[in-house]
Amino acid sequence: MDLQAYFAERIRLINDALDQYLPPENQPPVTIHQAMRYSVFAGGKRLRPILCMAAAEAVGGRTDRVVPAACALELIHTYSLIHDDLPAMDDDDYRRGKLTCHKVFGEAIAILAGDALLTYAFTLLAQQVKMVDISAEAALKVIEEISRAAGTGGMIGGQVMDLQAEEVQVDGDTLESIHKRKTGALISTSVRVGAMLAGAEEPELFFLAEYADNLGLAFQITDDILDLEGEEKKMGKRVGSDLKKKKATYPAFYGIERSKSIAREKVNRALQCLSNFGKEAEPLRMIARFLLNREY
Amino acid sequence: MDLQAYFAERIRLINDALDQYLPPENQPPVTIHQAMRYSVFAGGKRLRPILCMAAAEAVGGRTDRVVPAACALELIHTYSLIHDDLPAMDDDDYRRGKLTCHKVFGEAIAILAGDALLTYAFTLLAQQVKMVDISAEAALKVIEEISRAAGTGGMIGGQVMDLQAEEVQVDGDTLESIHKRKTGALISTSVRVGAMLAGAEEPELFFLAEYADNLGLAFQITDDILDLEGEEKKMGKRVGSDLKKKKATYPAFYGIERSKSIAREKVNRALQCLSNFGKEAEPLRMIARFLLNREY
Repeated sequence: MDLQAYFAERIRLINDALDQYLPPENQPPVTIHQAMRYSVFAGGKRLRPILCMAAAEAVGGRTDRVVPAACALELIHTYSLIHDDLPAMDDDDYRRGKLTCHKVFGEAIAILAGDALLTYAFTLLAQQVKMVDISAEAALKVIEEISRAAGTGGMIGGQVMDLQAEEVQVDGDTLESIHKRKTGALISTSVRVGAMLAGAEEPELFFLAEYADNLGLAFQITDDILDLEGEEKKMGKRVGSDLKKKKATYPAFYGIERSKSIAREKVNRALQCLSNFGKEAEPLRMIARFLLNREY
Repeated sequence: MDLQAYFAERIRLINDALDQYLPPENQPPVTIHQAMRYSVFAGGKRLRPILCMAAAEAVGGRTDRVVPAACALELIHTYSLIHDDLPAMDDDDYRRGKLTCHKVFGEAIAILAGDALLTYAFTLLAQQVKMVDISAEAALKVIEEISRAAGTGGMIGGQVMDLQAEEVQVDGDTLESIHKRKTGALISTSVRVGAMLAGAEEPELFFLAEYADNLGLAFQITDDILDLEGEEKKMGKRVGSDLKKKKATYPAFYGIERSKSIAREKVNRALQCLSNFGKEAEPLRMIARFLLNREY
C-alpha cells in the first residue's frame, strides 16, 4: 500500500466532509465562522480522523459510517489548539507556518471560535444518526466516550498538568501521564470510536485502545523531538520553543537519543497489539511505522 | 404558591444534583475541579434549571426526569460567564459579589475551566439515559437542541454580535437579535428541553418556546436596567459598567422608562403564551411575574 496516496485520499475525504459540515463562511455572524474555518483548514494532518477510519477498517467495518464522528474529533482537536495557543496559555504566534487564530482574529474571537468548535462537535455527533446508519444508543455511547476523553480526566486534565509542570521538575511517570492525557486520550478515543461504530466489541476494543495509547505516546515524543531538532520552515513554529518554556517533554527529560528509542519501543508495542488482526489492520500498522520515519 | 419557598426548594435540589454530578474537588488535577466548582457554586440563581423543571411540570410531566439536563444547562451557562468575564472579553473582576474565576485561578485555568464545564455538560447529557427514564432518541434530541442553542446560531453568535456592537451604533432590531441569541437561546432551550423530556409535542412546545423567548428578553432588559440603576452591593459588580463599555443595552438605546415598559410588555406576552395551559403552568407564570418585580 502506498502510504502517501492513502493519506492524501483520506485527507481529501475528511476535508470535504469538514467543509460540508461546518457553517458556511458567509453565514452571520461572519467573523466566527471565518475564524472556525481558518483554524480547521490551517493544514492539519487529520491524524485523529484517519485513525478513526482506519480502526473501522481494522475490524472489517465500513468507513463511511464513522465520517461524522471522525470530523467531530478533528473539530475538538482544533479547538484545543486554538485555546492552547492563546497568550494566557502557550502564547504561540504561529502554528504549521500560519498565524494562530488569535493573531488573525483577536483573542476574544479566538476564545469563542474554540468554544464554537467544541460545541459544534457535539451538534455533529448528535446529528450522526440522521447522516449515517448507526443507532441512537451507539451515537450516545460515542458522545460519552469523546466527551470524557476531551474532559478533565483526559485532554483538559493533561493540559492543566502540563501548565503546572512548567513550575516544577517532573519525573518520568508524570511525564508519561501528562502526555497520555493531553494528546493520548483523544488519539486513543479516535481509534476506539472508529472501531465501536464499526461494530467492534471487547477484546478487539481493548487491543485497539492499547495500540492507540502506545501510538499516541510515540506521536507526542516524536513531536517533542521535532520541536527541538526540526527546521523552523517545516514545523512552522519557533524551534525549541517548548524547551524555552520549560515544558515537560521527553527530550528535555531523557535526552534526544533515549527519547528516540522510547518512541521506537512504543511503536513496536503498538504493532504487537495488532498481532491478532488480519490484513484489514494494515493501515493502522502503516500509520504506526510512519511515525518512526517522521523527519528527524 | 409561595415563590420564595418554591425557588429555595428548587435551588437546593439543583445545587445538590450539581454537587453530586461534578467531579470532586480533591480529584486530580485538583486545580481544574476547584475552579469548576468555584464558579458553579458562586451564587447563581439557577434560572435555567428552574425553568427546565417548571416546563416539565407545565406539561404534566415528572420533574426528576429532567434534572440531569437542567444541570447540564447550568454548566453551559456557567462556562459562558467564565469566558465572558476574561480580560480579552468583558474583563470583569467581580460577578455576584465574588471574584471572577480568572481573578482567583488565573487566566489559563479559567479558560480551561470554561472548556471543562462545556465538555462535562455533554458527558452528563450522554449519561442521562443511565440516570433517568428517558430513551436514547430523546437524549440525542436534547443534545442536538442544547448544542445548537449554545453554538454560533445561538449563545456564541450573540456574544460575537455583542462584541462587535461595542464598535458601532446598533438599531432596535439588532439589539433584540443580540439578546435573543446571547441569553435568549439558552433560556428558550431550557424550557423546550424540559417540556420535551416530559413528553410534550407541538403545539405545546411552540407556545412554551414563545413564552421563553419573551421571558428571556424581559430578563435581559431587567438585567441591563439593574446594571444601570442597581446598588453595587446587590449586583456585586461595578454599576453602570455595561454603559461604560458602550455595550448594546436596552436602557442605553431606549432609556430606562421605555425599557421598563418593553420588559412589562414582554412579560405580558409570555403570560399570554400560557393561556391554554392549566394550573400546572403556574410556576412558569409565577417566574414571569417575578421578573417584573426584581429590584428596580
